[in-house]
Amino acid sequence: MSSVDKQLENLQAEIEAELPSEISVSDVKYEGPELVVYTRHPKQFARNGDLIRKLASKLRKRITVRPDPEVLTPPREAEAQVLDVIPEEAGVTSLDFHEDTGEIVIEAEKPGMVIGRHGSTLRKITQEVGWTPEVVRTPPIESATVSNVRNFLKQEREDRRSILERVGRQIHRQELSNDEWVRITTLGCCREVGRAAFIVSTPETRILVDCGDKPGAEGEVPYLQVPEALGAGANTIDAVVLTHAHLDHSALIPLLFKYGYDGPIYCTEPTRDLMGLLTLDYLDVASKEGRTPPYESEMVREAIKHCIPLEYGDVTDIAPDVKLTMHNAGHILGSAVSHFHIGDGLYNVAFSGDIHYDDTRLFNGAVNEFPRVETLVMESTYGGRNDYQTDQEDSERKLLDIIRETHDQGGKVVIPAFAVGRSQEIMLVLEEAMRKGDITEMPVHLDGMIWEATAIHTTYPEYLRDDLRDRIFHEDANPFLAEQFNHIDGGEEERQDVADGDPCIVLSTSGMVTGGPIMSWLRHFGPDPDNRMVFVGYQAQGTLGRRIQNGWDEIPVNDRNDRGRSSTLTLKMGVETVDGFSGHADRQGLENFVRTMNPRPEKVLCVHGDESSVQDFSSALYHEFNMRTFAPKNLETFRFK
Amino acid sequence: MSSVDKQLENLQAEIEAELPSEISVSDVKYEGPELVVYTRHPKQFARNGDLIRKLASKLRKRITVRPDPEVLTPPREAEAQVLDVIPEEAGVTSLDFHEDTGEIVIEAEKPGMVIGRHGSTLRKITQEVGWTPEVVRTPPIESATVSNVRNFLKQEREDRRSILERVGRQIHRQELSNDEWVRITTLGCCREVGRAAFIVSTPETRILVDCGDKPGAEGEVPYLQVPEALGAGANTIDAVVLTHAHLDHSALIPLLFKYGYDGPIYCTEPTRDLMGLLTLDYLDVASKEGRTPPYESEMVREAIKHCIPLEYGDVTDIAPDVKLTMHNAGHILGSAVSHFHIGDGLYNVAFSGDIHYDDTRLFNGAVNEFPRVETLVMESTYGGRNDYQTDQEDSERKLLDIIRETHDQGGKVVIPAFAVGRSQEIMLVLEEAMRKGDITEMPVHLDGMIWEATAIHTTYPEYLRDDLRDRIFHEDANPFLAEQFNHIDGGEEERQDVADGDPCIVLSTSGMVTGGPIMSWLRHFGPDPDNRMVFVGYQAQGTLGRRIQNGWDEIPVNDRNDRGRSSTLTLKMGVETVDGFSGHADRQGLENFVRTMNPRPEKVLCVHGDESSVQDFSSALYHEFNMRTFAPKNLETFRFK
Repeated sequence: MSSVDKQLENLQAEIEAELPSEISVSDVKYEGPELVVYTRHPKQFARNGDLIRKLASKLRKRITVRPDPEVLTPPREAEAQVLDVIPEEAGVTSLDFHEDTGEIVIEAEKPGMVIGRHGSTLRKITQEVGWTPEVVRTPPIESATVSNVRNFLKQEREDRRSILERVGRQIHRQELSNDEWVRITTLGCCREVGRAAFIVSTPETRILVDCGDKPGAEGEVPYLQVPEALGAGANTIDAVVLTHAHLDHSALIPLLFKYGYDGPIYCTEPTRDLMGLLTLDYLDVASKEGRTPPYESEMVREAIKHCIPLEYGDVTDIAPDVKLTMHNAGHILGSAVSHFHIGDGLYNVAFSGDIHYDDTRLFNGAVNEFPRVETLVMESTYGGRNDYQTDQEDSERKLLDIIRETHDQGGKVVIPAFAVGRSQEIMLVLEEAMRKGDITEMPVHLDGMIWEATAIHTTYPEYLRDDLRDRIFHEDANPFLAEQFNHIDGGEEERQDVADGDPCIVLSTSGMVTGGPIMSWLRHFGPDPDNRMVFVGYQAQGTLGRRIQNGWDEIPVNDRNDRGRSSTLTLKMGVETVDGFSGHADRQGLENFVRTMNPRPEKVLCVHGDESSVQDFSSALYHEFNMRTFAPKNLETFRFK
Repeated sequence: MSSVDKQLENLQAEIEAELPSEISVSDVKYEGPELVVYTRHPKQFARNGDLIRKLASKLRKRITVRPDPEVLTPPREAEAQVLDVIPEEAGVTSLDFHEDTGEIVIEAEKPGMVIGRHGSTLRKITQEVGWTPEVVRTPPIESATVSNVRNFLKQEREDRRSILERVGRQIHRQELSNDEWVRITTLGCCREVGRAAFIVSTPETRILVDCGDKPGAEGEVPYLQVPEALGAGANTIDAVVLTHAHLDHSALIPLLFKYGYDGPIYCTEPTRDLMGLLTLDYLDVASKEGRTPPYESEMVREAIKHCIPLEYGDVTDIAPDVKLTMHNAGHILGSAVSHFHIGDGLYNVAFSGDIHYDDTRLFNGAVNEFPRVETLVMESTYGGRNDYQTDQEDSERKLLDIIRETHDQGGKVVIPAFAVGRSQEIMLVLEEAMRKGDITEMPVHLDGMIWEATAIHTTYPEYLRDDLRDRIFHEDANPFLAEQFNHIDGGEEERQDVADGDPCIVLSTSGMVTGGPIMSWLRHFGPDPDNRMVFVGYQAQGTLGRRIQNGWDEIPVNDRNDRGRSSTLTLKMGVETVDGFSGHADRQGLENFVRTMNPRPEKVLCVHGDESSVQDFSSALYHEFNMRTFAPKNLETFRFK
């Protein structure tokens, strides 16, 4: 009998000893990090409200109870009973019965009402029908991504369950080594921005943290081929942890599956969905630009199938000697500071991922409280000695001034913006300004992936800033649903109409004017000196955005009416830049993150920044806080214990 | 056609273009780092004295010419001709004809006379008989190790040739990567003494440098199991380089073959033989102490079979992007500072191995001149701030004083000593003192492995200090053959005779009084207050040697006459310590090695020393020479380029 089977046998005995005699346990199994308890008495289980919580705390495991199929009320009959229990205002949009696991997936507009106070409604459902309910939110704005991901996971349920069982046995395998050490190997994003990738290793376990590309440098990928990474095969890695969905952290995660990886990806649910959206777009852009994509879209689906979603604050076993906890990072939807507790008290490492330290309109500031942490791996994008940004309040005032002026002279405003994060931040600024009368109400057109990304944001209000979340939950005042927002889904014809119409605002991708619908808006709005283009995000060297920012006004364009022959467009519209909307902490924010961190780490590895930013920041932390700081190179290994 | 075959085809064409038309080339092959050229005209080749040298310099390869078997004079006939060419004084002791390669191995007491001026006699042999002569020295003192190794290699010739051919193709394989980087991973001997092991890696190549055990801590072996070492299989390593034969550098080399390693070991010829002697003894000690040896003696033979001997100063291709050159390290016979030239001008790393900076009686001081070197990996055994040793001259005076006094009072002297290195140094001191009349001539008995180790030293006089070598070569005044030296080979009976006899000196292993014949000498000499025990080497914590040094005089011994029951021996003999005979540079010597190094390295990794020694030395080098210094931990990786 394997050690895992022995472990499960012991757990079953422990559980049986805890349960009242009328509740039997027919089996216990691991599925990923969870312990699944099968019972012929799900209703009795549900009746003893606290039972699962007590078991979980006694066994120090996440526990799911599943009914034996034969004790379930048949779906047709159960459906009516379930709908009877749930208050009508919950807005149930679908019920899905999965006989294999005895679960019902309930999609509802207001999941809170399906859950009930402390889960009371859920328990009542189980008491009535035996089935285990699982609730997901009906996206308030229809999202193709969310619905594709959900449908795909539904269709792959069986496969997914076998993956989870395999992963579960891996996580709970017996530890083999008596050695104790903790190491971090850098595979990318050291003394550079882009291609984030690290290996955390112990004698038992190797974990890959992030696996991104390097924007503007297609060939430069993380050093995955070295022995301490995937050199001995992709399946020598135990787990992948993804801090957030931006491509410089996620783009090459699907590639791992092409290389034969078959293990779990731990990330938040919004990160999973956004990774799906962004990596598929990444493939699309690559093939449009005539490059061979590094993997096929099938690999994106594999990645999604292998995601194990975590919520902020959940302490999760991801290996025999590693527990992972994700915390809000304030950077984009679902972004996570990832905390590794290693070896039952041996060592703690936190990866900041990308962070924003202060609250923004969209997100609460990054979490920096941990039970323990000895080493921090810290982003340093704006770590340079002069990387201080304008206050967001000032930035907003400036943006609104520009919009007001443009409107007053009868012009239109176009804002190139990244689909995920910055666009939603600007939407919130505009919605409030119009609601309060600071600027005239006018249409705000959303073009490119912005609408879709916004839809994903509204699906996961739990991940947004608390007052924003409360507005969406309690006041039914979802600002993203404000009527001035219009999704451009009619293509060129609709754009022409907008161009011919009254003053308005357009938010469009790509954020650095490197392609996408923004090129069309350039043609429509560019020739009119009454219009304005406003940059609100970083424009990298070599992009058209940077050149326009620098005053270029003769832009080569493909004239669609002339069979792709390129001509020149003369820009006459005004060009403005408004700083202060970055998703990254500035130098002050980075320092504050470390200054107020509790506890203060002993060591900091400064990564994810240009060489000079990283050196500046590393030296500043050393001098200010007297901690050991490092500015690693790629391909180095640091031992901590 | 493989890229290696294409390369060989091109080389053959180049060679043919260089040769006079009467010399044909029938084949070219790689054997290890050498290019072997087969010809039907070996005699003509030999007649053009400079031809091989010219080819070698043009092709930048080490070249060996082999005759086609059918053009060779038959052995019986050839033997007479060969003996006719070689002067009688050369003292040929055997001739071995290998028809497979057309080589004759000539064992002679004076190899120089077989070689002749600039190789003239060797060339003459080929001109006469077609065969390629290879010369080895007849050990002046018969050595079981040397003769076992030679017989074994003779018997395994065919196997060895196929190993060399495989290795040759590996070395000259096509480079696959466009990346450029150089890394060192520490697997042992960092902030500790013992278990030396490093990986040097590039995108193409991984090389293991040393693989030793940790004396006094049997379980603590190098971290071979991590992915960047052998984690993905022992055959993912391209080559092993052994700096010298001491067990803390060599003990686990045979283990690599148990793990499936099948590649080359680069070391000097004496290191190969001493490694054989010491690892077999290591297995013997382990089994005598009731421990399971980590590998069988068969693995020692495998290791010897895979050795590719290098001479000091030979620049040798050991991988497509790595050239190795070994230089005298002054520490023990065959010990080498190992210099890696990586990537055709990209980077240079030197490993000091263990060194002695100043000349000793046995060896010239360590070489520290290199064409280029950016990083030095430096031993720090005596790197502590107070690790200054007495001058050897003073030490010798003190030793001789003790011997004189003891002799005058009718006593005997016993010196516990390590078989390899220290014993021979003391032998040279004693031989000179007796020859010059500084002390009375008296027998010096050599017990344990000392005699055998001395025999190996006399087999390789080229590796000894130049004036010592010259004495052995030219004056026929080999000090190790002085008649006062007596090999104890009669066991207990002979020891009893010595104990009952006149004043004398005994040199015996083990050097730290942890076992071996020294235990018997303790019993024989210990009870007599006229006798002396003199420590000339480091006595580690926890050894009996250290305790005696500290004044213990009640020694538990196994009384052989009483069926192994242990009793107590009361030591009455005098106990003395004479420092200054260490094989390691002291703090001053280590600093001098770096100070006079040419060129000065940019970075120094201080290893192979206790934590405080390493930290002291690293900080001293930083402050004195303003270089970047590191005190690595085990299991770290440093990137240099």
